[in-house]
Amino acid sequence: VIEALAVRIDADRLRARHEAMSAIGATGRGGIDRQALTEAEIEARALVIDWARSRGYALSSDPIGNLFIRRPGRERNAAPVLAGSHLDSQPNGGNFDGVYGVLAGLEVLEALDDGAVETDRPIEVVIWTNEEGARFQPTTMGSAVYVGALSLQQALSARGKDGMTVSEALDFMRRKLPSCAPRALATPLHAYVEAHIEQGPILESARRKIGVVLGIQGLRQYAITVEGTEAHAGTTPRLRRRDAFVAARRIAAELDRVATDAQDIARLTIGRFDVSPGTTNTIPGKVAMTVDLRHPDQDELDRLDRAIHEICRKQAEPCSASVETLLASRGVSFAGCVIEAVREEAARLGHGALDIMSGATHDAAFLTRLCPSGMIFVPCRDGISHNEAEFTSLDDMIAGAEVLAGVVRRLSHIKAELAA
Amino acid sequence: VIEALAVRIDADRLRARHEAMSAIGATGRGGIDRQALTEAEIEARALVIDWARSRGYALSSDPIGNLFIRRPGRERNAAPVLAGSHLDSQPNGGNFDGVYGVLAGLEVLEALDDGAVETDRPIEVVIWTNEEGARFQPTTMGSAVYVGALSLQQALSARGKDGMTVSEALDFMRRKLPSCAPRALATPLHAYVEAHIEQGPILESARRKIGVVLGIQGLRQYAITVEGTEAHAGTTPRLRRRDAFVAARRIAAELDRVATDAQDIARLTIGRFDVSPGTTNTIPGKVAMTVDLRHPDQDELDRLDRAIHEICRKQAEPCSASVETLLASRGVSFAGCVIEAVREEAARLGHGALDIMSGATHDAAFLTRLCPSGMIFVPCRDGISHNEAEFTSLDDMIAGAEVLAGVVRRLSHIKAELAA
Repeated sequence: VIEALAVRIDADRLRARHEAMSAIGATGRGGIDRQALTEAEIEARALVIDWARSRGYALSSDPIGNLFIRRPGRERNAAPVLAGSHLDSQPNGGNFDGVYGVLAGLEVLEALDDGAVETDRPIEVVIWTNEEGARFQPTTMGSAVYVGALSLQQALSARGKDGMTVSEALDFMRRKLPSCAPRALATPLHAYVEAHIEQGPILESARRKIGVVLGIQGLRQYAITVEGTEAHAGTTPRLRRRDAFVAARRIAAELDRVATDAQDIARLTIGRFDVSPGTTNTIPGKVAMTVDLRHPDQDELDRLDRAIHEICRKQAEPCSASVETLLASRGVSFAGCVIEAVREEAARLGHGALDIMSGATHDAAFLTRLCPSGMIFVPCRDGISHNEAEFTSLDDMIAGAEVLAGVVRRLSHIKAELAA
Repeated sequence: VIEALAVRIDADRLRARHEAMSAIGATGRGGIDRQALTEAEIEARALVIDWARSRGYALSSDPIGNLFIRRPGRERNAAPVLAGSHLDSQPNGGNFDGVYGVLAGLEVLEALDDGAVETDRPIEVVIWTNEEGARFQPTTMGSAVYVGALSLQQALSARGKDGMTVSEALDFMRRKLPSCAPRALATPLHAYVEAHIEQGPILESARRKIGVVLGIQGLRQYAITVEGTEAHAGTTPRLRRRDAFVAARRIAAELDRVATDAQDIARLTIGRFDVSPGTTNTIPGKVAMTVDLRHPDQDELDRLDRAIHEICRKQAEPCSASVETLLASRGVSFAGCVIEAVREEAARLGHGALDIMSGATHDAAFLTRLCPSGMIFVPCRDGISHNEAEFTSLDDMIAGAEVLAGVVRRLSHIKAELAA
């Protein structure tokens, strides 16, 4: 209890830092455009580096530009406990997605200092490169490269919409930022824990401050192409039509039907639906649509996968439909020791908590390949994210940082390798 | 009967002329791109002018570029019977839409000459300017201006996608073509009859060569906008979504349901369906769709109009939907005397005929405002039109030209003003 009291999150500092970050890349409409490795994101990194240096923390950076801020532990060479997230945003991004996890991590380091708390292991905070994938594909690039899931060479040669490669953008950043010690990819970690806004409405609805994140649900994305025959809207009777729009909307309705469950767990979204030729008086000859399907249960995901193929085979008549799988990512389960630490710290601090699956993917998904990993969610208003209206209260940000402080301390005290 | 035998359509001439026209603006894929007042359409007009001059027919042109070819009658100053259509095409147009009516008209003039047949009234063939509306809006521009439904000034100032106005394009054409006598807009006509491919599958299905066109069905076009809320596809439960795509596809299904009749008469087409933001992992916040609705019965069109508004009001929940009427054109009934002439000439010639409503609009729709008007349809394979695969057999082209010859002769013999 004495130790717990010693780590006191500084609400004014957290709020001031959050406000300072919200000004960098501000769109003027309440949100930010701070895409990866742009001037705005570099400016945001520079500010975090200033804060870290003013407390004397050591900085290191790996070949994909992930930045690590280190507060030493009693055992100087032990594998660190890592916290953090990302500073990049969507083009019309909000002020909480990613940046909250970095600021909460930095706040934990400083709160430990303020309370003169020593930890056994070093505690680090990371800024992952290009989590959003808005400028460069793929998403969660920095963590994927760090754990070896994506080759450095492939990531460096990815080219953004503006024509610049990641390699060129990293050079541009390095010229603007103070030099950091080099860090090898896959440098061992004891554990990883990421604080993040939920990006959904579940915690808010349940009136809980803390989400104990059990894992990330499985995701499949499909491209479905429906082919019919273009014809004149005025002269072609209904029974003679091969209307690709009609077939595609019927397929879409069936997809929604099979993915509707009483518990409201499965998530099926048709986000793109391009109709050709797209003129008022021509019966559409083609529809290209995407399906985004998520479920925490892999068996259920497999069942829905089979249903999608069957629906496209059976419901397309008199048109034809083909299905291409764009992405198939199995669900991720976080480490029991991290989940337990989050649950117990929330209980100890008196913050109402709820077990939750993450609907979105995060850098923590890749970190599970390298070390025991987990996440702490805080609520966001109306579940709105990837949107300039994104909002999380200061109270909730503080609660998340308090839990994060407790979790990293707890994990840092464990000397042996953690069990996943 | 003696007169009837005297008008003999020359199959070889009609085929040769059709082949020559198919080469002008040919895309190399079987169709043509001969948009209004382009070099290709001007070249096609030049060829028709050559043919007309070689037979000594008088040429005149009005301020919107409609071109008239005149074979005199016994009564030189009587209002003429007019046949014809257009030479312009869609960007991926076929070799029959429009051009067939011009060639059939010219063939009739020459067949009358070949048979040394005199008519009481002059017979004219017209090439209307910009029927398709592909380069310049609106469609059926030349006939609309001729009858006074569209102001000349408004038509001349219409600007194409290439930046050129109709006025500039007409100047360009006049520099390339032999000069013609000027003709005033709305110069009186005794009757108008237009031969055209059906652009639908009805005659082919019924195995008839001639469509006795009763009129043009009424047309309404709507823009429906469905507004929901953009949200993250992975984190937002179904019951919390305001998915504009789901609401719009439900509205679309209801629209199809109310427009489905056992006789397959109503035609409802959703041709545009634009989903925003259109990314795989974002729940759509907006759908902009168009509805093209056609029916020969104005009461039924009014009933469906009310149903569309009611469906958008009731089925949009939890999203909202608004309806804007883009176009409301009442059905057109052709003149009884022209319909009768087509029906009787087809019977006299032994060509199986069928009463039919036109699904598409034509220049003949505007001509009804100036004089008794009508149309003769011939079949087209698989009902395909506005498509490079458009095809009508030479036999059917000849049958239509034979009926056209009979109809213009019959109408030219009537001295008094015709009753609509």
